[in-house]
Amino acid sequence: MGGDLRFVQGNEACVEAALYAGLDFFAGYPITPSTEIAELMSSRLPQRGGRFLQMEDEIASICAIIGASLTGSKVMTATSGPGFSLMQEGLGYAIMAEIPCVIVDVQRGGPSTGLPTKVSQGDINQARWGIHGDHAIVALTASNHQDVFSITVDAFNFSETYRTPVILLFDETIGHMRERLEIPEPGGIHLVERLKTSVREGVDYHPYLQREDGRLPMSDFGGVHRYNVTGLFHDMWGFPSENPRVVHELMRHLVDKIENHVERMTRYREYYVEDAEVLLVSYGASARSSLHMVTERRQHGEKVGLLELQTLWPFPAALVREKARHAEFVVVVEMNMGQVLLSVKASVERPERVFLANRVDGTLITPIDIRNILRLIQGKGV
Amino acid sequence: MGGDLRFVQGNEACVEAALYAGLDFFAGYPITPSTEIAELMSSRLPQRGGRFLQMEDEIASICAIIGASLTGSKVMTATSGPGFSLMQEGLGYAIMAEIPCVIVDVQRGGPSTGLPTKVSQGDINQARWGIHGDHAIVALTASNHQDVFSITVDAFNFSETYRTPVILLFDETIGHMRERLEIPEPGGIHLVERLKTSVREGVDYHPYLQREDGRLPMSDFGGVHRYNVTGLFHDMWGFPSENPRVVHELMRHLVDKIENHVERMTRYREYYVEDAEVLLVSYGASARSSLHMVTERRQHGEKVGLLELQTLWPFPAALVREKARHAEFVVVVEMNMGQVLLSVKASVERPERVFLANRVDGTLITPIDIRNILRLIQGKGV
Amino acid sequence: MGGDLRFVQGNEACVEAALYAGLDFFAGYPITPSTEIAELMSSRLPQRGGRFLQMEDEIASICAIIGASLTGSKVMTATSGPGFSLMQEGLGYAIMAEIPCVIVDVQRGGPSTGLPTKVSQGDINQARWGIHGDHAIVALTASNHQDVFSITVDAFNFSETYRTPVILLFDETIGHMRERLEIPEPGGIHLVERLKTSVREGVDYHPYLQREDGRLPMSDFGGVHRYNVTGLFHDMWGFPSENPRVVHELMRHLVDKIENHVERMTRYREYYVEDAEVLLVSYGASARSSLHMVTERRQHGEKVGLLELQTLWPFPAALVREKARHAEFVVVVEMNMGQVLLSVKASVERPERVFLANRVDGTLITPIDIRNILRLIQGKGV
Amino acid sequence: MGGDLRFVQGNEACVEAALYAGLDFFAGYPITPSTEIAELMSSRLPQRGGRFLQMEDEIASICAIIGASLTGSKVMTATSGPGFSLMQEGLGYAIMAEIPCVIVDVQRGGPSTGLPTKVSQGDINQARWGIHGDHAIVALTASNHQDVFSITVDAFNFSETYRTPVILLFDETIGHMRERLEIPEPGGIHLVERLKTSVREGVDYHPYLQREDGRLPMSDFGGVHRYNVTGLFHDMWGFPSENPRVVHELMRHLVDKIENHVERMTRYREYYVEDAEVLLVSYGASARSSLHMVTERRQHGEKVGLLELQTLWPFPAALVREKARHAEFVVVVEMNMGQVLLSVKASVERPERVFLANRVDGTLITPIDIRNILRLIQGKGV
Repeated sequence: MGGDLRFVQGNEACVEAALYAGLDFFAGYPITPSTEIAELMSSRLPQRGGRFLQMEDEIASICAIIGASLTGSKVMTATSGPGFSLMQEGLGYAIMAEIPCVIVDVQRGGPSTGLPTKVSQGDINQARWGIHGDHAIVALTASNHQDVFSITVDAFNFSETYRTPVILLFDETIGHMRERLEIPEPGGIHLVERLKTSVREGVDYHPYLQREDGRLPMSDFGGVHRYNVTGLFHDMWGFPSENPRVVHELMRHLVDKIENHVERMTRYREYYVEDAEVLLVSYGASARSSLHMVTERRQHGEKVGLLELQTLWPFPAALVREKARHAEFVVVVEMNMGQVLLSVKASVERPERVFLANRVDGTLITPIDIRNILRLIQGKGV
Repeated sequence: MGGDLRFVQGNEACVEAALYAGLDFFAGYPITPSTEIAELMSSRLPQRGGRFLQMEDEIASICAIIGASLTGSKVMTATSGPGFSLMQEGLGYAIMAEIPCVIVDVQRGGPSTGLPTKVSQGDINQARWGIHGDHAIVALTASNHQDVFSITVDAFNFSETYRTPVILLFDETIGHMRERLEIPEPGGIHLVERLKTSVREGVDYHPYLQREDGRLPMSDFGGVHRYNVTGLFHDMWGFPSENPRVVHELMRHLVDKIENHVERMTRYREYYVEDAEVLLVSYGASARSSLHMVTERRQHGEKVGLLELQTLWPFPAALVREKARHAEFVVVVEMNMGQVLLSVKASVERPERVFLANRVDGTLITPIDIRNILRLIQGKGV
Repeated sequence: MGGDLRFVQGNEACVEAALYAGLDFFAGYPITPSTEIAELMSSRLPQRGGRFLQMEDEIASICAIIGASLTGSKVMTATSGPGFSLMQEGLGYAIMAEIPCVIVDVQRGGPSTGLPTKVSQGDINQARWGIHGDHAIVALTASNHQDVFSITVDAFNFSETYRTPVILLFDETIGHMRERLEIPEPGGIHLVERLKTSVREGVDYHPYLQREDGRLPMSDFGGVHRYNVTGLFHDMWGFPSENPRVVHELMRHLVDKIENHVERMTRYREYYVEDAEVLLVSYGASARSSLHMVTERRQHGEKVGLLELQTLWPFPAALVREKARHAEFVVVVEMNMGQVLLSVKASVERPERVFLANRVDGTLITPIDIRNILRLIQGKGV
Repeated sequence: MGGDLRFVQGNEACVEAALYAGLDFFAGYPITPSTEIAELMSSRLPQRGGRFLQMEDEIASICAIIGASLTGSKVMTATSGPGFSLMQEGLGYAIMAEIPCVIVDVQRGGPSTGLPTKVSQGDINQARWGIHGDHAIVALTASNHQDVFSITVDAFNFSETYRTPVILLFDETIGHMRERLEIPEPGGIHLVERLKTSVREGVDYHPYLQREDGRLPMSDFGGVHRYNVTGLFHDMWGFPSENPRVVHELMRHLVDKIENHVERMTRYREYYVEDAEVLLVSYGASARSSLHMVTERRQHGEKVGLLELQTLWPFPAALVREKARHAEFVVVVEMNMGQVLLSVKASVERPERVFLANRVDGTLITPIDIRNILRLIQGKGV
């Protein structure tokens, strides 16, 4: 690879990846530990011909990127927990109106203002359920900067492919630590561009009429076609409808377009899984400690393995069930009260064998923490 | 009972109950299908000497009641899904600062503006997870107006007892249908009043120092004690802290004060559960159809029963596991894509025996719908 | 293959196959949706030197072919449900007297005159149990015209091999739809010819004395041997007997000659069965929709498979048990109230995992129908 | 009881019960072992003012009683296996047109003419499945003459209540043996009379419009209302319809009106069931031998019990499952190749514990036969 080599924070890796993916428009309100993303964007994006807007708050931020996306732009905002809570209403609108956009949540300790620059992974289930009403969502994460880069590009690709908001759930440790990043050559990673409509000017365009493959081509708002966009349940013209059949079909479409493509959206890494008697399941900064612990214990002959999830939603249940099939113990390692734990328990054949190794005090869970908890789980005492 | 007999909407039953419970302050922004609550409050509450404020939006509404509660008032707001999404940040503050308040969400179809006056039960998991960061929550519901009344009183009682926001999750059908309500005599239902501090004026008051029983007595803000209130993790003085031990203890306190009292907060009804081979688990308007179906099929000798949940959060897992122990089929009846289903599956011994009977098109699920789905589940076809 | 290529109805494929198999004699009373079989036979069979008789009703039809078969002819009749009901007494005679014959039932909606030209698969269990008294039966079906052809040839082969009536259970959709059929070259499919007796003229012939391999060679009735044929229990001479030992042996012979050869008579197709988590079991037109659904969902990574049964009786229980062993869900797809469902449930290790996806309103079950029912079965709701 | 005491054949008990139930019309073609029923009817029925018709065959017989029933009469025919096969088409018409009638099948050995005056119970599954197309059926039996009497009255009552054919499945032993019968006083057994319509002359009568309780009041054909009766699927006017919704609803109505009332139609007797380690399940003449064996072995302290089924269809699955719950062995005792065995296996929790004790040679199964088979089942050898 002849790529550009850098020593960066995770937040910077995310910014570079967004630019690589073709970002046109960023609107945001800075909040630690995501601040560097807005800061870097304010200089880097205009250099590339894109637009950066500092908004008055997070509600304005999500609304601005939704509007910009409708006109044909690739868009992004970045925030942390408190701002993410404020964005839930706008996010629901983007889901209902099927507008591509990428939202970064660099997690810190919550709830409320919580722990501004301390690490946490406490927003995982909010990413899934924070919006009122049934819906599906895509949320991705990563544990190192090379993966932060590629998963950020994936976020844009998924967003454009499925016309859906995609959430990037990083954490304070990943956002702020520095490590090597090699930026790929242009063309090194496939980029998905928006599917434009082939309906010509002067001909009726049905903004919510699916093609045979289920996809909805878009026409740039303000362009040659006039059409309706709404947060209400709507028909193929985009006009509101309360017809139960229309409502049911739209609901199923919004859910199925995500849930039925779980395999295509599943990104993960695995280490020593095949013969693992103890399988760690982790993600983000927690996965770094997990990997360290696994590598170290393997040198002592312990059959420990790690499944690192990068796709958190739609939850890769089939993958987890398959990888966990032969393990005697499954230990979810995360920095919250057991949020991914719930999904893992719901996915495996023997939920009574799933345990939690966690830390919720704003400090990074360590390999020693994990090993100590594992001893207790195995009945070996403290 | 010599109570006052009325023929009211569910929204009106909720208003009367709040007044009965001693409501002092209501702030809200009307939104269907909860509008009647604000409308009735605007006349009924001032008659009792309370304050009604029409706010500019839902963020203002939740913030207003939090402030009013701090001064010693019993407070409430009411909204539907879109407004509930906007309240998530404020709700997190109330959780972190441990401020009693009651929030009514009369659910309609979502996400986004969705289906303004059509029934749904799509906000159940948002009530649990809509706030960023780990936390616990109390959420209650009911399927008839007498229960709407008593569960609303419970909401105020739990809120004051545990210094926590309590969410009332009604649905459009319950909110708008009319049926008989008998308002109990004053004193007929026990009311919990706020636990005031016994610390006297001039002496240091530690607003977040727990008593031996874990409760935190409050001093009216603006009164004789000066103290700090924050959304940040904090010590017993209410001042921000990043000390991991302090953070960990506060996190566990916020979760444990709810989760450890699940039994005291569990409200439910059961019908023919004892010998039921098919156990329906339902709540709200869905439970009405479930009850009709169960009663009708019992007349034909079918061993069908119903467990109607009124407490949705903290989820009464032990109760559900116990009641489902001898059932061959457990069918969760709800008007969403299977939200309580997830909790039921996580609670029972044989999750593969748990099925979903649902409807997500804005129309009420009927007894016939349930029976038809039951046939399919039982392998009997259409 | 240098075979003759045609674009035909299923009924025509059946006619061509019967001619290919060496049909000598056809007697029938036309009834939709089987009418084309009699119609085509009336011209095609005489061209080949065979005899076609239009009878006054279905009782006469079955009796005519039984008589013709006794004289050494390969025989067939065709009808639909109402006519098939009328043939039950004659069928029982053919079983007791061990007379080869092929009966086609192109199923329509029943009971009674029911739905004359609408699809159904409601006669499956009648084919097994429509005759009074214990007995065994052979019944075959197919889902495409190439298989209609080969299974029709099988029907004649089984009939001659085991001296038994064989029922072809097609359905209206298969009977009337047109698709490509390649008629094999003569000799392309092995044909079983009747086993003639080696007993010479003038020597006593025992029509019901089994050879060592259990088979009964026949002498053409009206030929060189005189012998008795009866519907009563009988000895090796064909004369009536009430001797309990004779009765018991004949009963066991009639059942065992079919049931003990289930493996040789089992015809089926399988698609993606090996790793299927959801196994569909289907046949006839329902199997077409099942195959479509399986192929489509495999493209989305869903582990769905299809076992298409062509032999319905004797029921291939061992095959079904083996194929279903690793499936989490077994779904029988058929157009009736669950007739093959009963046999599948009786065959598998975990009958509680067997479900029904069906349609009973005279319209073809579609891939979407199957998928929707599958969702409910999997507890995913509507 | 001051009833009339007699010493009669089972066939005679059946005749007396039909007269007691209010039989108006009998048409039949005599066949052993049911001949005495027609013979006695030919003299007894006209004495009471009823009509007896000797028909030319069984098809004519079933058609005659269907026509007579339509005019408001209580009707019956009687036959044995071969005639019962011929009646299947007419039976299907009676099911589709919902015409009350009672058909007696005094079983002999089959298939075909089989064993004219030897005992068998080989028509059980034919009674369920002999008719083409999906349907439900009622079939009853008894093991002693007092029960033959009361179950025959039940047959008329069920037939009138549910507007359905009811089949009485006796066997040669019950039909021909003589024992004591006490005929109850008039009024001693409740009789169900036909539900007449309350629609007056000159007003449109909808012959297939259900009342709220699901029942269809009848107007005597040839009377004041003109209406259509057909074997085709039909609407509430009785006119043919291919509308899928109409078809589905009629199909479900025809099945549900029987299957959903299984408890009301379940007749059975039990002996020593409560603590039985070995539970015999039997019916008809086989139940006599079973009862003898159970009574005798109880005197030796063996924990054997008997569940005697009188209602065979709709099969009382819930009853059988309940009674078999605590038994280590369930042994179905019957005189066929295991027909009720299939239903028992499909009903119980542990089908691998269900065994068959049978006899199929035209002689009555004896208590010794049952005991010998039981030893083998229990692993005690011959």
